[in-house]
Amino acid sequence: MNKQILLETYNRIKPFIHKTPVLSSSLINEMVDADIVFKCENFQKMGAFKMRGAANAILSLSEEERKRGVVTHSSGNFAQAVSLAAQKLGVKAYIVMPENAPQVKKDGVKTYQGEIIECKSTPQAREATANNIKEEKEASFLHPSNQDEVIYGNATAAMELLDEHPDLDVILTPVGGGGLIAGTALAAQYFSKDCKVIGGEPMEADDAYRSLISGKIETNDNFNTVADGLRTHLGDRNFPIIQKHVEKIIRVEEDEIINAMRIIWERMKIIIEPSCAVPFAAVLKNKQEFKNKKIGIILSGGNVDVEKLPF
Amino acid sequence: MNKQILLETYNRIKPFIHKTPVLSSSLINEMVDADIVFKCENFQKMGAFKMRGAANAILSLSEEERKRGVVTHSSGNFAQAVSLAAQKLGVKAYIVMPENAPQVKKDGVKTYQGEIIECKSTPQAREATANNIKEEKEASFLHPSNQDEVIYGNATAAMELLDEHPDLDVILTPVGGGGLIAGTALAAQYFSKDCKVIGGEPMEADDAYRSLISGKIETNDNFNTVADGLRTHLGDRNFPIIQKHVEKIIRVEEDEIINAMRIIWERMKIIIEPSCAVPFAAVLKNKQEFKNKKIGIILSGGNVDVEKLPF
Repeated sequence: MNKQILLETYNRIKPFIHKTPVLSSSLINEMVDADIVFKCENFQKMGAFKMRGAANAILSLSEEERKRGVVTHSSGNFAQAVSLAAQKLGVKAYIVMPENAPQVKKDGVKTYQGEIIECKSTPQAREATANNIKEEKEASFLHPSNQDEVIYGNATAAMELLDEHPDLDVILTPVGGGGLIAGTALAAQYFSKDCKVIGGEPMEADDAYRSLISGKIETNDNFNTVADGLRTHLGDRNFPIIQKHVEKIIRVEEDEIINAMRIIWERMKIIIEPSCAVPFAAVLKNKQEFKNKKIGIILSGGNVDVEKLPF
Repeated sequence: MNKQILLETYNRIKPFIHKTPVLSSSLINEMVDADIVFKCENFQKMGAFKMRGAANAILSLSEEERKRGVVTHSSGNFAQAVSLAAQKLGVKAYIVMPENAPQVKKDGVKTYQGEIIECKSTPQAREATANNIKEEKEASFLHPSNQDEVIYGNATAAMELLDEHPDLDVILTPVGGGGLIAGTALAAQYFSKDCKVIGGEPMEADDAYRSLISGKIETNDNFNTVADGLRTHLGDRNFPIIQKHVEKIIRVEEDEIINAMRIIWERMKIIIEPSCAVPFAAVLKNKQEFKNKKIGIILSGGNVDVEKLPF
């Protein structure tokens, strides 16, 4: 049944997304003594895989619901993804953002005609503001990672990757809110023979690693990582999928993330976010484990401020 | 006859180069009100189109000549291209570099096992040193831009582009030493119906623009441009081709180059050198002229020092 849902999801969102290219680098393969293919979601519309989940979530709404609009709180890629998907479908998008969000993020949302509602920079204020809009406008709330439709939409990146490379031994993704790795794990479950899914997480925000050990959703006390997309924690919709289908999570240090990011920039000539570099950093850190394996890595996005690079 | 030479060249170098992807961006097309396809030579082996000319030049040597090795003077992409092409063909490469060349450039050559011979940082010293090696080792001298085999090799980028997009109205390339635009002009001459070729050049190093006006090879007094690959001047092998087959050269200011580079980085998520951004800057500057046209732009390379970006 799940397989059917994923196939329907893919057909539903197909007209609204790019089928992103899969790239590889012989220099990187030599470096790790393995065969890595990179699924380039940094080339996705609005620059990140988030477009897939956002498009699916809005497309799954009824006509009535679409008329009333959608609301989310995010200062990152999901804000832009919801704005763009909503714009393409003629749906009003309310985006709750902290008042101190960087101008570049606000501009991104405005490009796609999302309506920004500012709030104080606390999780409580964000949620309260989003709730107000939800009630006042009767808008549908979309969660960046902890919502089934979003998870299914995210799964389509790995579906495309496995369609092109059915023989992968393992797929790695970064772990932030858990929506990408949960979707990827479902895709591997239903569209591969025996492809494992492994997560990469910054040591500085290793909530998912700890959650898998404790068996409950852990949070982070600090967010001191360059991988700004991975500071969030798992949710009750994606955690059970991750527990069931994800092999393990590998943690990496900040300098390992920056080094991995730089290698991809310099060798592959593509722009990826720091968060994206985490799974490749995990492979670099564990060369012996991945030796001679056929590895898929989902490069989740490419929205960086080119004036504020970590190197 | 020339068409035959180009076809033979392509078949000769094919096993040694990547057929690079052609990318486009709907956001960029909207911005310029035209249809632009980018030929991504930044994804070429060693990161630049120079691989094509270097491979062809070495492959065109006799067995005897190959045994004695090749020599060039370059501190840029051609040094790496000759090193890599020579390495792949089991040929010894002597690379004359100024003693003050950046370590990153020297490292690039060493990666591909080129032998670096340092000299004083003057054109005279470079030429004298290269000449010494040529005589001492009986090595074949390869010129980065002013040599027929190099020009023919460079032509293959536009041949691939025209094969994929036969209906281009115009192809733009940057103009440095003239080897790329001359090759591109030959490709358009023999493999398109009526595709024009236009060059982009920094105002700060507009020797080619002035050469087309004066009818003789002009040089630059200053080299004060961020487009460090375009500071050289034309040569006697490529200038006649450029005079005959290039429509015109458009000059752009430094801030226009940096702005164009930034748009390509941010919108397309790919890493290009400042020199690469010059033709796109020319289109941005002359929107009216290019309106509704189908445009090919050759992105010549992606070797930048990520610690020294112009933004």
